Amino acid sequence: MTFEKKNLPKKSENLANWYNRVVLLAELADYGPAKGTMVFRPYGYALWENIQKELDQDIKAKGVKNAYFPLFIPESLIKKEREHVEGFAPELAIVTIGGGEELKEKLIVRPTSETIMYHMYAKWIESWRDLPILINQWNNVVRWEKRTYLFLRTSEFLWQEGHTAHATHEEALEMVYWAMSAYEKIYRELLAMPGFVGRKSETEKFAGAITTITYETLMPEGKALQSCTSHDLGQNFSKPFDIKFLSKEGKQEYVWQTSWGLSTRAIGGMLMVHGDNSGLRLPPRVAPIQIVVLPVKMETDILQTCDQIAAELKNQGVRVLVDTRDDETLGFKINKWELKGVPLRIEIGPQEIKTQKFRAVRRDNGEKLEIPISETAPRVKEILENIQTNLYQQAEIFLQENTREAKTYEDFKEIMRTTKGFIRAFWCENPECEAKIKAETKATPRCLPLNAKEEKGQCLLCGGPAKYKWIFGQSY
Amino acid sequence: MTFEKKNLPKKSENLANWYNRVVLLAELADYGPAKGTMVFRPYGYALWENIQKELDQDIKAKGVKNAYFPLFIPESLIKKEREHVEGFAPELAIVTIGGGEELKEKLIVRPTSETIMYHMYAKWIESWRDLPILINQWNNVVRWEKRTYLFLRTSEFLWQEGHTAHATHEEALEMVYWAMSAYEKIYRELLAMPGFVGRKSETEKFAGAITTITYETLMPEGKALQSCTSHDLGQNFSKPFDIKFLSKEGKQEYVWQTSWGLSTRAIGGMLMVHGDNSGLRLPPRVAPIQIVVLPVKMETDILQTCDQIAAELKNQGVRVLVDTRDDETLGFKINKWELKGVPLRIEIGPQEIKTQKFRAVRRDNGEKLEIPISETAPRVKEILENIQTNLYQQAEIFLQENTREAKTYEDFKEIMRTTKGFIRAFWCENPECEAKIKAETKATPRCLPLNAKEEKGQCLLCGGPAKYKWIFGQSY
Repeated sequence: MTFEKKNLPKKSENLANWYNRVVLLAELADYGPAKGTMVFRPYGYALWENIQKELDQDIKAKGVKNAYFPLFIPESLIKKEREHVEGFAPELAIVTIGGGEELKEKLIVRPTSETIMYHMYAKWIESWRDLPILINQWNNVVRWEKRTYLFLRTSEFLWQEGHTAHATHEEALEMVYWAMSAYEKIYRELLAMPGFVGRKSETEKFAGAITTITYETLMPEGKALQSCTSHDLGQNFSKPFDIKFLSKEGKQEYVWQTSWGLSTRAIGGMLMVHGDNSGLRLPPRVAPIQIVVLPVKMETDILQTCDQIAAELKNQGVRVLVDTRDDETLGFKINKWELKGVPLRIEIGPQEIKTQKFRAVRRDNGEKLEIPISETAPRVKEILENIQTNLYQQAEIFLQENTREAKTYEDFKEIMRTTKGFIRAFWCENPECEAKIKAETKATPRCLPLNAKEEKGQCLLCGGPAKYKWIFGQSY
Repeated sequence: MTFEKKNLPKKSENLANWYNRVVLLAELADYGPAKGTMVFRPYGYALWENIQKELDQDIKAKGVKNAYFPLFIPESLIKKEREHVEGFAPELAIVTIGGGEELKEKLIVRPTSETIMYHMYAKWIESWRDLPILINQWNNVVRWEKRTYLFLRTSEFLWQEGHTAHATHEEALEMVYWAMSAYEKIYRELLAMPGFVGRKSETEKFAGAITTITYETLMPEGKALQSCTSHDLGQNFSKPFDIKFLSKEGKQEYVWQTSWGLSTRAIGGMLMVHGDNSGLRLPPRVAPIQIVVLPVKMETDILQTCDQIAAELKNQGVRVLVDTRDDETLGFKINKWELKGVPLRIEIGPQEIKTQKFRAVRRDNGEKLEIPISETAPRVKEILENIQTNLYQQAEIFLQENTREAKTYEDFKEIMRTTKGFIRAFWCENPECEAKIKAETKATPRCLPLNAKEEKGQCLLCGGPAKYKWIFGQSY
């Protein structure tokens, strides 16, 4: 009996089929009964818990406090900021019946919480002494989708949304960039996903923001994933929501605001980037199980040795599991844990007990390592770090190889028709050029990298003056 | 300037007014814009985080894994178990519009997740090897309410819901009692709230359960609060949801199920039980801030000493805050932190620096203690434990003093008309007697304590044979 990998399409041949199948087979998630919904199964939810734990620590260390605001937003509130409601209107789920009665005012299931939070902020803020307000919430939001793409596009998703209010624009901007730096840490260090940090175009920015900063990663088929965003809201919400404060100078002023969010979509991106034809490859730092120990036979001394090794590793903070199922062959288990992406596999049999050495197999590159049992913990921890680094480097190479320059629009079209990936190109920042490029190539400006330097260029499309090379790509 | 305690009604005179006011003044929570909703402000949400942390550890140690199921339940699913839908129908919030279109099938915003989870369990379970399934989720649920009672009764609340499936009824029952023991630990050890553990009457049990075990606590005005529940669902859901497994003996059998939940209502009960006329009294183990350090003057050496003390306490895992606001007098701050219920207050001034001793004031009983700065951490930790114990003991005495025996129905009515509280009385377990008692006294059987011994008694109302003394009370 071998694990049903035969059901797993090749990642290199059909990414979407591979992805849907591997997520189901690995028991990360499943489809919910209502259209567009998904179930986070324990193995998949544990990934989210690991992300939460890291990010929540950073959020708290910054002095941002967690809170919780209602799921239901009265329709009148969501309509207060014009661009905001226009942006979200097509995606709303609306409650019209409550407690057996038709509601007088419809309730929107939050697609994001700006409006309901800022309605409260207006009540709470009186003077500069009440500022800054630094609040985050971990919750569920709903943006209507008809087709589910597990983790990547679902009607309901989980995320955190930070919402801050400040006395000055400068202070708000500092928060916008701080949030993005915290997200970069999650992506680069935890999820081993490189990407571009930059500013969104006016067309692509958040509905209601002055500026949106984004982290854009690249998926294996060459499409871009907007992986999280941080918004400078300026006074766009504080004016309609009347969030004023008495300044130190005794003047009534509107607060400056930010919002920033990272969602369970991050998990989908991570799975796509690192997986291979045999299944998932989870970066050790986020993996729910970092090491699986497989007894070659179900014999007492072997099981005891497995437990000893596991106990030592657990003691050192390593997440380890001994697979003692007796109805699966060793081959089946090897395939199963490869598919589930556990970073390192250890096999223990009579030979290993005799020699007091075991073989560890790296999931990322298949490398086999001989480890003396007496050196288990330090060696294993070192290998896990190497795996983490290797996965990042592989993704980084892929990103670099698939970030191209396009000198002409012909080049641009050709690339978007064939390899796809990111393209660096001059753009005049005119929305008409943006729309035409999108219509003809499906590509949009993903971001203007924060570190882009000013040049004297010509717009890819219209040839007009263009100061910066933007990153273009086809998005999810 | 003194803190606006003048706005705080006396707890002893008007409990509901005191409660609503103290929750707002302490910035624990606020009313949301939609009817029945509330906002958990950071200080209130931190209480929930502390409960979560403790309970989540126990849940994981038991081998139960966290997961996340969709918010929206198709109407057809929720109708599968007749008693369940009848129980919840009047409280449902219903989404009828999604993505700009009238939905073909209405979506219920989950009031609890049995139906959607068990729909998935049926897909996942094939043989005894897939059992037990031990899943928990931390989420939000909605049960329609027109009037908000902050934390205690709100349309949306936060909770955890554990849902397990087993091969035998015996194993399921073990889980039902395990969950209640975990909850008891939270109530007794963290929230310092004594109560009765027992079985619900057939009328009061969960819609769809065979048996419901409850933890019933007593509020200051003598009303009972159902504080959490754990349900033996038997095969009541596995049959309509067709959750079958192939047993070891090769037979198709229905699984045995449990569900159990503890919600943010726990916070409301805890605030009510311990508070006094000056505000909250938070049990140290759950308090977001365990110690507040107040500099008597804003002078460098004083502030340095405050910071040193705080740093040492933080180092020892104590949650401490130095209040350095310079626009509030010491008196104002003392009142503020008393109202906010911080268990221990330390004041540091020139005198304290000179003598290297400071005064610590206990919030629970006002006791003042002299502590040498060199002994800060061990002494403070000891005092915090004493406060925790004292709050529990005070609540325990109140519970005992307000749990009475009623030999006759006349006695029973008199108690329920005057002091209220819990009453131990024989009841024949006939729902007609239960209904009549409720109509005449507003009291219902809250639970049959698990440790009740069998006796030969006569029903309080009808005089018929009654085996057990039940605990009666008026409920929230």
